[in-house]
Amino acid sequence: MSRPRYTDLVASLPATVPFVGPETQERAMGRPFAARLGANENIFGPSPKAIAAMANAAEEIWMYGDPENHDLRHALAAFHTVSPDNIVVGEGIDGLLGYLVRLLIGQGDAVVTSLGAYPTFNYHVAGFGGTLHTVPYLNDHEDLPALIAKAQETQAKLIYFANPDNPMGTWQKGEDIAAQLDQIPDGCLLVLDEAYVELAPEGTEAVYDVEHPKVIRMRTFSKGYGMAGARVGYAMGAKDLIKSFDKIRNHFGMNRASQAAALAALEDQGWLSQTRQKVTEARATIAEIARANGLTALPSATNFVAIDCHRDGDYAKALLAALVARGIFVRMPFVSPQDRCIRLSCGRPEDLEHVAKALPEAIKSLS
Amino acid sequence: MSRPRYTDLVASLPATVPFVGPETQERAMGRPFAARLGANENIFGPSPKAIAAMANAAEEIWMYGDPENHDLRHALAAFHTVSPDNIVVGEGIDGLLGYLVRLLIGQGDAVVTSLGAYPTFNYHVAGFGGTLHTVPYLNDHEDLPALIAKAQETQAKLIYFANPDNPMGTWQKGEDIAAQLDQIPDGCLLVLDEAYVELAPEGTEAVYDVEHPKVIRMRTFSKGYGMAGARVGYAMGAKDLIKSFDKIRNHFGMNRASQAAALAALEDQGWLSQTRQKVTEARATIAEIARANGLTALPSATNFVAIDCHRDGDYAKALLAALVARGIFVRMPFVSPQDRCIRLSCGRPEDLEHVAKALPEAIKSLS
Repeated sequence: MSRPRYTDLVASLPATVPFVGPETQERAMGRPFAARLGANENIFGPSPKAIAAMANAAEEIWMYGDPENHDLRHALAAFHTVSPDNIVVGEGIDGLLGYLVRLLIGQGDAVVTSLGAYPTFNYHVAGFGGTLHTVPYLNDHEDLPALIAKAQETQAKLIYFANPDNPMGTWQKGEDIAAQLDQIPDGCLLVLDEAYVELAPEGTEAVYDVEHPKVIRMRTFSKGYGMAGARVGYAMGAKDLIKSFDKIRNHFGMNRASQAAALAALEDQGWLSQTRQKVTEARATIAEIARANGLTALPSATNFVAIDCHRDGDYAKALLAALVARGIFVRMPFVSPQDRCIRLSCGRPEDLEHVAKALPEAIKSLS
Repeated sequence: MSRPRYTDLVASLPATVPFVGPETQERAMGRPFAARLGANENIFGPSPKAIAAMANAAEEIWMYGDPENHDLRHALAAFHTVSPDNIVVGEGIDGLLGYLVRLLIGQGDAVVTSLGAYPTFNYHVAGFGGTLHTVPYLNDHEDLPALIAKAQETQAKLIYFANPDNPMGTWQKGEDIAAQLDQIPDGCLLVLDEAYVELAPEGTEAVYDVEHPKVIRMRTFSKGYGMAGARVGYAMGAKDLIKSFDKIRNHFGMNRASQAAALAALEDQGWLSQTRQKVTEARATIAEIARANGLTALPSATNFVAIDCHRDGDYAKALLAALVARGIFVRMPFVSPQDRCIRLSCGRPEDLEHVAKALPEAIKSLS
């Protein structure tokens, strides 16, 4: 029988689907989650102005979005005090990471990340044939000096580093990161994933010249701005590097309503401040709930909290399953020793009440 | 100075941006177009139910879309009487073509298309290092027997064939296409782009077993359903082939509001019928305007009309520029002999009045 002739690389990729959404779990359970706190979505939602912009744009959705993302790029440039040519807008950080990996990584090229860091990045690296080298977390923090040393050792083309980190929620001072940029080996690029930085303490954002040839930073409207379902992210870096995305990106790939909504969200920094406040409160509530159940919340600079269950990964996994069975959508780190934790997104008070009720029951069910 | 180490392939790709949107032209002109008729957008827009679904979904845009596109895939499966496992939903046909090329095409792999056919497909082929072989149009129609012969000759892995065709608007009987599928060489896959088929005469859609191993068909909500800015397309094919997309696609790449809107649009087939009627009327009006100006509209099965200017490409190009200068956004085929035409999307009566007014002036300006 005739078969399509896949590339050798594609033929070698695993057929299992690595990403399972909460909807899949809900369909399997036959009922919706009572609290959706597993995917680090921002349940406080986007600015009402962004929602209105999106709803208004629905009327004109017969038009393609502007392939240059002109208005959004220019607004972002003004916001960050860089040139619009230092910014590329794309289909979420996931989409932009895919483009970046494609630009740099071919069969066998070395890439460095932390063991247990963002799996979608690893998925893209594997998908373009790269060879992933990992460095362990250091006390639940990504270890930038070790990542740089590993890149030197493996002649890596790309280092992935998230600040704040997902899945642990830990963070590092921006100035400490900026101070290390010059130590990145020549010909290696650091992808600094700042997806959660809008929710982090002052000083977490790294400050450096946007034309620095060894770093590209990723930002998103999915987290602080609360628009995960709209798929809008952006990368900032040297003009040459940013321009290279035009060689391969899906030029008409952006949703027109999302472009409008992101612009409105960016302009409503007051809403972002309110979100920051609500996230701070939710972190404190989660920490309290953890403490009341003999567990320990790790300090977090994100809209989620890793809760140390003080046992091994099997225990945390069982606890997670017990919470899922009680209608709480929650996820966990998938590598030891971080997998002693479960990871809970910040919710509204009513969401966290579900957790406060379910957690002691779940713990009891395991004893 | 340190530079990112691009792959050899990326380094070899042209740096020029091949896609220019109407917004770019408007910014250059300093004023908006009076009639937006260049990108084959469907100005009659989506079903009001789709608009409402999108506006409602704006409220829940803080959530990622379902990575399985479960509800939409199942509705499409019921609509087309295939299994949901025969369908992959993606970020427009453009996005799906990118995935498909990536699955099959590596450096130097042969691909066949028509000379002057859809440029975004060619962009993807170049972007993954494929070698493009072309076959001329035959009397303004894509020539499937010649495409198949060329695939045989070049041992191509992939043939691109659109029915109806863009940019000419011509079409072929579905049964004639279905009859040729078994002649496709073993190990070659036909990508049958039916982006415009909802607007074509009865009998244009090819009917064949969805498990046929030599064909994958592409559909979109951008054209007949009027949602270009929402970025929703789908591919139908053999389960094995469809499953392979899961190895590389951006699993969380779909916009949540677009998923909801596409579902609502699919359910409103009455609206699609009305659109079909309006498109038919617009085609007739465009043909009349052409005739009144000594030009000839080609018969069209799409929501655009190629207008034969009865001169060479330079003349058509000048006429197009003269129309653009008069506020009409219009495009044209870019390869001879098709480039004797300009291509006008179907508009509302008021849009076409702009054309009726501008076209004689534009023609006069060239004499």
